[in-house]
Amino acid sequence: MPAVAEAAPDSRSRRVRFGLNYTPSKNWWYCWSDWDAQSIRADLADIRALGMDHIRIMGLWPELQPNATFVRPEMVNRVRELLDLAGERHLDVEVTVLNGAVSGFLFVPPWMINNGTGKVANFFTDQDTLAATQRLFAALGRGIGRHPRFLGFDLSNEIYWFAQPLGIDVAPAVGDGWLRTMFADAEAAAPGRLHVAGIDHFPWLNDDYFSRDALGSTGSVSANHTWAGWVDIFSTYGPMSTPSLHYSEYFIELIKAFHTDPRRQVWIEETGISSVWMDPELIPRWTEQSIRNMVSCEDLWGVTWWCSHEVNRGLTGFNPLEYDLGVYTNDRRLKPIGATIADLVREYDRNPPKPIHRSAALVLPDGMVPSIPFFEPFMRLIDKGVRPAVVKASRATDKAYLEARGIDKLIQLDEV
Amino acid sequence: MPAVAEAAPDSRSRRVRFGLNYTPSKNWWYCWSDWDAQSIRADLADIRALGMDHIRIMGLWPELQPNATFVRPEMVNRVRELLDLAGERHLDVEVTVLNGAVSGFLFVPPWMINNGTGKVANFFTDQDTLAATQRLFAALGRGIGRHPRFLGFDLSNEIYWFAQPLGIDVAPAVGDGWLRTMFADAEAAAPGRLHVAGIDHFPWLNDDYFSRDALGSTGSVSANHTWAGWVDIFSTYGPMSTPSLHYSEYFIELIKAFHTDPRRQVWIEETGISSVWMDPELIPRWTEQSIRNMVSCEDLWGVTWWCSHEVNRGLTGFNPLEYDLGVYTNDRRLKPIGATIADLVREYDRNPPKPIHRSAALVLPDGMVPSIPFFEPFMRLIDKGVRPAVVKASRATDKAYLEARGIDKLIQLDEV
Repeated sequence: MPAVAEAAPDSRSRRVRFGLNYTPSKNWWYCWSDWDAQSIRADLADIRALGMDHIRIMGLWPELQPNATFVRPEMVNRVRELLDLAGERHLDVEVTVLNGAVSGFLFVPPWMINNGTGKVANFFTDQDTLAATQRLFAALGRGIGRHPRFLGFDLSNEIYWFAQPLGIDVAPAVGDGWLRTMFADAEAAAPGRLHVAGIDHFPWLNDDYFSRDALGSTGSVSANHTWAGWVDIFSTYGPMSTPSLHYSEYFIELIKAFHTDPRRQVWIEETGISSVWMDPELIPRWTEQSIRNMVSCEDLWGVTWWCSHEVNRGLTGFNPLEYDLGVYTNDRRLKPIGATIADLVREYDRNPPKPIHRSAALVLPDGMVPSIPFFEPFMRLIDKGVRPAVVKASRATDKAYLEARGIDKLIQLDEV
Repeated sequence: MPAVAEAAPDSRSRRVRFGLNYTPSKNWWYCWSDWDAQSIRADLADIRALGMDHIRIMGLWPELQPNATFVRPEMVNRVRELLDLAGERHLDVEVTVLNGAVSGFLFVPPWMINNGTGKVANFFTDQDTLAATQRLFAALGRGIGRHPRFLGFDLSNEIYWFAQPLGIDVAPAVGDGWLRTMFADAEAAAPGRLHVAGIDHFPWLNDDYFSRDALGSTGSVSANHTWAGWVDIFSTYGPMSTPSLHYSEYFIELIKAFHTDPRRQVWIEETGISSVWMDPELIPRWTEQSIRNMVSCEDLWGVTWWCSHEVNRGLTGFNPLEYDLGVYTNDRRLKPIGATIADLVREYDRNPPKPIHRSAALVLPDGMVPSIPFFEPFMRLIDKGVRPAVVKASRATDKAYLEARGIDKLIQLDEV
């Protein structure tokens, strides 16, 4: 275990929470049916040693719910045991349920596959599947819903990456209805917890699966996975460019423009960097600046880095960079990126990060997909010394709204 | 437990072995990751109480091997524990591995699914998958290969029902190559055991996936699943008709025509009956006569009825008849069919069943698909009082062969 002190026990009161996406060092999430509490305990000690206050974990849908009407008690018990183990290290746990798609693999519950055609049921609309997912949330709620270390349910990890290859596509209105149904199920199963939809840039930058308005108004906070590497930011703009260093910040401010509750928060639930994308020498510096820029935002719930431990190289078929994303190596050696993050967390525990109040907002035309033609002006403002908020055009004349957000200057796209 | 005595401890020396396809009463094969040794122990006591000497069990491929290079030790340990529990009841165990398709559900290993297209790798030909299956057999061989109760590997349960809906089809020459590779892997992993390919009528009655010649010459014995109900025998000919009562017998004799080793045996590895197909009043009588006709055949390894216990009705999505096929109810009450089979087994332990020597053989033209135009003449011979063997036309002039089989009369199709 590295020689860094345990974080203060009151880390739940941090202005910005810090955590890691947990990747079990021993056999990844295949550990659910190859349980080794000692190995998990050691992993969690590694995570706490960096000052983290929470983790996010991944259920595998077919293992949790092998039959539409059967949630495996042994699996639920193991989720609870993992929460117990996390509790030993003062770590809260967000539990991702309907997976679906994790790290490039598709986990299809057998009961969703038509045995004549091989087609997978449209889980967004199929009534039997919706009843089954409700059962799954209910069973998990009974098993862990009141656990003191249970943060909440992440409905599903980037579910469109599960749906798309299986030929399942839905219009945003349908996806939005699914979000509302799932959040109602999650809330009924575990009232008052931090329930989120774990998504990345895709639905924000495409009019597909979910609407931006629903993403900004359903669930407890707006979770987002900001992966600059997957959308070619480093190769397009340069690894230490403004767009690279402020990519996550951009999403935080963009998403807040779609919040109807002015106190609602954004959660950077995944972000990370691979040496496949960037010279390893630059990674600690990029990481530090990227985090500093994130915490410059108001209304940020937390930052949950991807991920704790490198994937065991004995496991095959992952994208090569999945073996590289850990802040620890697979054999528990702290990497420079991990030391960088731990230093920042310690600094912020001494001196909580002060957010920049953004009184100037870049106006996003309603219906505009906020990709490059909006992203680049946002970055140009940063280059000019402005740290902008974002406001939807349709709300730009709502004085009470602007006042509530403390915005007194509007910047139109053609002014940048 | 029903009041029937344990079978004699030397039941391995039976001329015809009797067993059941084991269906765990508590949560079906989902039990692999929801382990309850006490429930399994009670199930196995039920099975032994009927005088059975073996069971066949079903692995679930994604659970055994969640990653191409990772066979879950916990799952292998549980297979071994099941063999230990079976040993307590003097039951041998055939372990079916690459499932695939069981009871109407498809279990697709995630590492076989392309995450861009959703397509499943052609496991008959894909080199990575073939390397993975070899690893799986090797790991199981290390875990259970020398277990005193391990009968052998069934490669896969009716793998074409797994392949077909996933759009995977191969010519018989390709399927035959796969059989040889898999049997070589199984034999390397557990030399000298009873390794079989668990198939039903389909490849015998269609020139698809496997050739009849390869099915009759690969593996330790020729396994077959004789389900008269799935091919409409009862509705076409009547439940107590000759074709119905001699359906399994037909397959035993048909398959033997494709044996190159005259001592090779046939195993009726699955056969069963549902009240969905037949008036329950008739079921015990049909069962008794069907078994008596099977054991009338020489070179029969055994009969393994489907199945031990009815599927738990709390589990959904199975074909309705799957809930009805057990010889025990789900709550362990012996059904009339179970009592019938147990009576027969006791009778045969007192008086081993004498096979009928078949000196007259119906000649099967080479290349002819042995469906109705061959099946019906075979049945007409039985109606006439002849219990025929079957000989391929290309071997009908081979005197040494006919002599070895004790056949002195050939019957051409146009003579029936």
